[in-house]
Amino acid sequence: MLSGGVGAARLLRALCDVIDPAQVVAVVNVGDDLVLNGLTICPDLDTITYTLARMNNDDLGWGLRDETWRVMDELAALGGEAWFRLGDRDLATHLYRSQRLNDGATKTEVTAELTQRLGVGVRLLPVTNDQVATEFVTDQGRLTFQEYFVRHHHDVVVSSVEIVGAEEARLSDEARRALEDADRLVIAPSNPLISIDPILRVPGVREILLERREHVVAVSPIIQGAALKGPADRLLRELGHEVSTLGVVDFYEGLVGTWIIDEADAALAEAIRARGVRVEVTTTIMADRANAERLAKVVLS
Amino acid sequence: MLSGGVGAARLLRALCDVIDPAQVVAVVNVGDDLVLNGLTICPDLDTITYTLARMNNDDLGWGLRDETWRVMDELAALGGEAWFRLGDRDLATHLYRSQRLNDGATKTEVTAELTQRLGVGVRLLPVTNDQVATEFVTDQGRLTFQEYFVRHHHDVVVSSVEIVGAEEARLSDEARRALEDADRLVIAPSNPLISIDPILRVPGVREILLERREHVVAVSPIIQGAALKGPADRLLRELGHEVSTLGVVDFYEGLVGTWIIDEADAALAEAIRARGVRVEVTTTIMADRANAERLAKVVLS
Repeated sequence: MLSGGVGAARLLRALCDVIDPAQVVAVVNVGDDLVLNGLTICPDLDTITYTLARMNNDDLGWGLRDETWRVMDELAALGGEAWFRLGDRDLATHLYRSQRLNDGATKTEVTAELTQRLGVGVRLLPVTNDQVATEFVTDQGRLTFQEYFVRHHHDVVVSSVEIVGAEEARLSDEARRALEDADRLVIAPSNPLISIDPILRVPGVREILLERREHVVAVSPIIQGAALKGPADRLLRELGHEVSTLGVVDFYEGLVGTWIIDEADAALAEAIRARGVRVEVTTTIMADRANAERLAKVVLS
Repeated sequence: MLSGGVGAARLLRALCDVIDPAQVVAVVNVGDDLVLNGLTICPDLDTITYTLARMNNDDLGWGLRDETWRVMDELAALGGEAWFRLGDRDLATHLYRSQRLNDGATKTEVTAELTQRLGVGVRLLPVTNDQVATEFVTDQGRLTFQEYFVRHHHDVVVSSVEIVGAEEARLSDEARRALEDADRLVIAPSNPLISIDPILRVPGVREILLERREHVVAVSPIIQGAALKGPADRLLRELGHEVSTLGVVDFYEGLVGTWIIDEADAALAEAIRARGVRVEVTTTIMADRANAERLAKVVLS
């Protein structure tokens, strides 16, 4: 599964309820990664790890359950950079990762260590071990991903998104092999423009999907013209795409063999099929476990 | 005051009880500094800061009072580097420092920000903004300072100490000015070999002390052949020095105008005076506030 954060994490979790997690591999976006307070933070990898380890905080929608905030409170008192809230439990992950990266380990290796330690059966592969940074040109100036997403709550006007470093990044051997060998490639219902596109822009990924199109299944992140969560709809509009499942279908043109769209968008099925792809209609909202499991089964079937 | 950690911190605190803290400047050892878990940690600067801010943990002898250990416990569970115990409150300091250093601030600037924020009146100046690393050649192999001190509890046989980077380090302008302009220069009762020597080896420091010798007062860290705390006595022996106040006097040869030694070593006063320096005899153990204040007054008189 080409994976962003929350949406991908939920679908991965649902897949694990239906098949052996050892059969599932996620190739994960690293465009949101940042260095803050000296620590390397990988929000999408961590969201998936925590969700699959059943440690995620469903109330907050991010971070860990049973979290405490001692360090951040002290950091705020010192006048430090405390806008990106790093919980005490969460910090341990970032300390671990930063130490191992300083030791010379790759992000792929560190991710394997963390997931193994936390009992995550799914294999998580950062798409690249190189630095990729999703940046936003906005009416507030140029923003890093987390400045845009967390500091400004994505409430700014975006004129363009740039995936800095993507073109020079090297698709990791592990991710390449996973993409080439998988029986099925799934594009998660993550934000196309800022979660999936940074994966597609790493040289090699788009080519593999074009080649393996018949095996590619995509789940639309848009339902009735709106994103369930996050700024996908607004970004589609601001960046000149149609704000609907059709807009996403066109964005992924040539890469997808089968689209899975929500029942509420059933009326669009014909228009999508007219573009030469298969369409499955089901409930794509993973509001409860039963729905998520149904979606997982459709993805697998 | 040329300062290491705990001993210097206590004498600085005592001085603040006697004179205006704004008149006191500490030039601080950075040879113990380390990068761990991605964070830059400055143990001597932090020990002094916390002690002067009255935040230090007297029971532990290091770190902060009211400390909690959530992050370290989680890091240990992840299999991370948890032998160097970083408390949750303490971590905020290291996150703050690491962020500011990444921003391009110097260690001197970061120290000024932290001390200002924590209400420390004494000016703390890292002797250099460059990297200096005190390393130990031991029967357990080559060890970094914290491996020697914390991981091995300084219970190894040391054949030599190397202050890596000292000769190339640049004495900071602020520290140089402080050393040149101070009415009195004090060598703290810190470990001569591993707390004070890394300061003296930064080019310029030794020369200033040689020049200003008449203004230099040193407090012996050795009483009746033993260190109050830490491995100073053992290191003196292993590195071929006499294990007594006389050994320390000879180690600082030419740099000190007045020695302050403990009453228990009064019998050594004549031998020290014979080396051409003044000697004051008093209680040098800062066991309680009254004793510490008495020592501070002798230092100032």
